[in-house]
Amino acid sequence: MDYSKLRVKRAGGRPLYEQLVETLEGAVEAGELKNGERLPSERELAGRLKLSRTTVAGAYRELESRGLVRSHVGRGTFVCARPEPSDAPFAWRGKVSASVARLGNSLSLRHLTKDVLNMKIISFAASSPSLECFPVEAYQRATERVLHRSRDAALGLSPTEGQPRLRELVAARFKTRAERVLILSGSQQGLDLMARCLLDPGDSVVMDRPGYVGAIQTFRAAGANLIGWDVLRADLGELEDLVMRYRPKLIYTDPTFQNPTGRVLPLRERQELLKLAARYRVPIIEDNPWQETYLDAPPPPTLYHLDTHNIVIHLSTFSKIFAPGLRLGWLVASEYIVDQLASIKQYEDVSSEGLTQLVLAELLQGGLFDDHLAGLRKEHAGKRDLMIKALRRHVPPRSFEFNTPRGGLHLWGRLNEGVSARQLLRQTLAKGVAFAPGEMFYSDGGGRHELRLCFTSVAAVKIEEGVKRLAEILARERSGAAGRGEYAVPLV
Amino acid sequence: MDYSKLRVKRAGGRPLYEQLVETLEGAVEAGELKNGERLPSERELAGRLKLSRTTVAGAYRELESRGLVRSHVGRGTFVCARPEPSDAPFAWRGKVSASVARLGNSLSLRHLTKDVLNMKIISFAASSPSLECFPVEAYQRATERVLHRSRDAALGLSPTEGQPRLRELVAARFKTRAERVLILSGSQQGLDLMARCLLDPGDSVVMDRPGYVGAIQTFRAAGANLIGWDVLRADLGELEDLVMRYRPKLIYTDPTFQNPTGRVLPLRERQELLKLAARYRVPIIEDNPWQETYLDAPPPPTLYHLDTHNIVIHLSTFSKIFAPGLRLGWLVASEYIVDQLASIKQYEDVSSEGLTQLVLAELLQGGLFDDHLAGLRKEHAGKRDLMIKALRRHVPPRSFEFNTPRGGLHLWGRLNEGVSARQLLRQTLAKGVAFAPGEMFYSDGGGRHELRLCFTSVAAVKIEEGVKRLAEILARERSGAAGRGEYAVPLV
Repeated sequence: MDYSKLRVKRAGGRPLYEQLVETLEGAVEAGELKNGERLPSERELAGRLKLSRTTVAGAYRELESRGLVRSHVGRGTFVCARPEPSDAPFAWRGKVSASVARLGNSLSLRHLTKDVLNMKIISFAASSPSLECFPVEAYQRATERVLHRSRDAALGLSPTEGQPRLRELVAARFKTRAERVLILSGSQQGLDLMARCLLDPGDSVVMDRPGYVGAIQTFRAAGANLIGWDVLRADLGELEDLVMRYRPKLIYTDPTFQNPTGRVLPLRERQELLKLAARYRVPIIEDNPWQETYLDAPPPPTLYHLDTHNIVIHLSTFSKIFAPGLRLGWLVASEYIVDQLASIKQYEDVSSEGLTQLVLAELLQGGLFDDHLAGLRKEHAGKRDLMIKALRRHVPPRSFEFNTPRGGLHLWGRLNEGVSARQLLRQTLAKGVAFAPGEMFYSDGGGRHELRLCFTSVAAVKIEEGVKRLAEILARERSGAAGRGEYAVPLV
Repeated sequence: MDYSKLRVKRAGGRPLYEQLVETLEGAVEAGELKNGERLPSERELAGRLKLSRTTVAGAYRELESRGLVRSHVGRGTFVCARPEPSDAPFAWRGKVSASVARLGNSLSLRHLTKDVLNMKIISFAASSPSLECFPVEAYQRATERVLHRSRDAALGLSPTEGQPRLRELVAARFKTRAERVLILSGSQQGLDLMARCLLDPGDSVVMDRPGYVGAIQTFRAAGANLIGWDVLRADLGELEDLVMRYRPKLIYTDPTFQNPTGRVLPLRERQELLKLAARYRVPIIEDNPWQETYLDAPPPPTLYHLDTHNIVIHLSTFSKIFAPGLRLGWLVASEYIVDQLASIKQYEDVSSEGLTQLVLAELLQGGLFDDHLAGLRKEHAGKRDLMIKALRRHVPPRSFEFNTPRGGLHLWGRLNEGVSARQLLRQTLAKGVAFAPGEMFYSDGGGRHELRLCFTSVAAVKIEEGVKRLAEILARERSGAAGRGEYAVPLV
C-alpha cells in the first residue's frame, strides 16, 4: 500500500486518531492492506503524516483491539484480517459422526417451525396455545419481583434438577414429591434425555401410531427400532403381541387428548396397559402435555397416578398451556431416574433458564396460573367451535372427515383416498395456509391421507379465512380427482 | 369405610359439595378408602347423608378431576389413588443404556454447582461474573418492550438456529455473517452438540491440559479418548507429535485467558496452531468465553479471525460477561456445521428461550451492553486486586504460588507438594470456603496440588475473609506437613 496517499483532516474537528483508524480499517477491508503485510513503524508513519507518535500508537492499539492488526515486540505490526471464511474449502462433510448419518432430514419439526415463523401464513401446522391469553402484565410484574428479591438465584447458576421452588410447586400441583421432579428446557429435552439414558442403538420402542413427530425423530436418532401401536384401536392384545415379539426397552404413549388424534385412552385400558407393562417389565413414558387443556370435562387420571409399580415416567410442559417460547417443561419419575437424567441434562445445558423458572414459580404460587388456565380453555373451546363451523360450512361433503376435539390443541382428520396430504399442503402453502400432513406422525410411511389442524395458534378472526382457502383447494382437487383417479405427481 | 361416620355441616356457610369433596379426599389420603374400592352410588350416598343427588354428583366429578376416583358407566365409581411411588420396587437400574455407564460421576460440574448454591459458603469455586453489575432496570425495561412489541416472536416457537435479530447482532459484533451463527442454550450445549456431531466412541480428542472440566466430561461421555496438550508449555512440536500419533478428530483449546490457567496463547503460536491443524485436517474448537473479559489490554485476535482454512468452530457465551442463569451462548462455524448442529439442537431443546434472546438483542442493539462490559471489567479488576492483596497478606510464603490474571474470572495456583487440593477443600468447606481443586481440570489424574480461585463470583467485602480462612488452614497444614511428610489420608 502507498502510505503517501493517506490523508487526515486537521480542521474537521474529529480526532486525528479516529480518522487514522478509519482510514486504515478501510484499507484492510478494501484489500489494499493485505493479510500478513507489515505496517510502517509508529515513528515512520508519524513522520510521514506529520502526526504525533502517540496518535499513531493509539490508532494501532485500537486496530489491534478490533482484531485487524497484531504487534510483535521487536518485529513490528502486521495485518491479520481474514478472508471471507465461506470461500475456504475445508471438507466439513467428512467430519461428522456415524450417528449424524442416522438423522432423517425430510419433514422435521425444524422445517415445520420455519413455515410457522413466516408470519404471513395462516398456520394450522404449529402446536401452540393462544398467545392472546398470555398474562403479559402479570409476567412483567413477576419478573420485576424476582429480579429484585432473588437476583442471584435468578441470574446465577441454577441446580441442574431445577430451581427448588419451581420443583416444589410443580410437585404439589401434581401430588408428588419435589425429588421426583426434573425441570426441563421443554418436554422435547425430556425425550432426548430419556433416549440417551434408556436406549442403545438397535433397541426397540413401542409407540403410538400415529404419534408425536418429536418422539419419532428422537428415538430414531438414538438408533431405535420403532414399532407402532395403533392409537385409535388401542387393542391391548395387539400391544401384548408387540411386546412379546419385539421385547421393547420402552413403551411411549400419549394417553390423553393424544397428539395428533385427540383420542383419550379410557380408564380401563389405562389399567390394563399398566398391568401389561409391569408384567413384561417395560417402562412407560407417558407424554402428557394436554392433561390441563380439556375443553369439556377433565380427563381420566394420568398413568403416573394410576401406576402402582413405579414403572411410569411422566412428561409434561408449560409450552402447551402457557408459551412455547419460554422452553420449560418437567418430568416426574423415580428419584434414581431423575438423578440419571440430570447427569445427562448437565451436558445439554447445565440447567434450564433460572429467571424464567422463578417467574413461572411466582405465577404458580400466586394462583394466577389457574385463572390463566380457565381463560385459556374458554378461548380454545371458542376457537375449536369456530374451526368446526367453518369446516362444516366450506369443505365439500365427504372430502374431509374429522373428529371433534375434547381437549388438546388439534383436530385430526382424513381426506378421501384420492388426495395426498403432502400434495395438498404444497397447494395450500401457495395460498398462504399451512397444516401438518399426517405422514409426519407415522414412522412407517402411513398417514398419506390424514392431516392435523391446530385450532389454537391462529387468531380467531383468521380461522374461517384459512379454512376457506383450504376448502377451495379441496373442492378443486375433488372435481379434478374424479377425472384422473390417483395422483400421478410424486410427493414433495 | 363406614359412610355413616361422614359428616357435613349445614350451618357453616361452606358449600356442602366442598365439604364432601374434602372429607372423601381426606379418607383416601388416610387410607380409609382403599385403591380400587367402590364408592356408594350417588343416590345411595345422597340418601344416607340427606344431601341432594346433584351435590353428591358434583363432588364425585370434582374428585374424578383430581384423579382420586374414576366412574365407569354401569359399574360405579372407584377409588384410584396410588400408593407412595418410592415404595415400589421397579428395577430402573437395569434399564439404563450402555453409554450412561460411561458417565463418570465423581467431581462433576453438577456437584460443584451444589456447593456454590449453598449461599452460606464463600465460594471461589463457581465461575460467575459479578452479578452486582447486572443492569436490572435496563433488563426489565427491555423485557417490557419486547413483550409489548414482539409478543408472538418472544413467546411462540423460535427458529432452532436462534432469533434472527440476535444472530445478526452477534454476527455484526463478531464481524461475521448471521448464517454462520448458532444461538445456544449456554456454551455447554455447544460442546455437547459438537461431541454428538463430530465424535464416535473411540475417537481421540487433543485438548488443553489442564482444561475446562465441562469439555472433559462431555468428550468423555461421548466415548472419546482424551489426549492432553500441555497448556503452559504450548509446545507446537509436542502438539504435532500428538496429532501424528493419535490422529484426533478434534483439537479443543481455549487460547485466551485459558480456563483454568489464565494463559494467553501468543499470536505466533496461534498462527502455527492453525497451520498445523490445516496440514493434518483436524478441526479446532476454539472455546472463547473470555475474549471480552480482559482486565488490562485486549487479547490477540481469535483463532477464528486468524483462520484462513475455515477449520475453526468458535464457541462463546453470555454467561461469563452477563449472567450464567440466562443460559445463552453462541457458536460461529461454517454454514454446513451450523445446519448439522441445529439438527441435533432440535432434539435437545427445539430452540433456546425466545424472550431472553430478544431481550439480549435489545440490550446489544442499544449499546447498553458495551457500557455494561466496561463496568464489569472495572469491577473485576478491583476484585482481582483485592484477592491478590489478601493472598499476599495472609498466605504463608511458598505455600501457594499463583499467577496474576490479565483476564477471565480466575486465578490459578499451585500448593507446595505436601498438600493435596482435594484434602484442603474438605477442610476449607468445613470452614465455609469453596474453591475448584485442580484435578477437575485434568483428564488423567494430574493437578493434585493445583487449585482455581474465581475472584469475581464473591462480593468484594467477602474476598479477604474467604482468603483468610483458606490461609489459616494452609498455615496449619504446612506446620503439620513438616512433621509427617506426605498425607496418609486417602483422597475424598
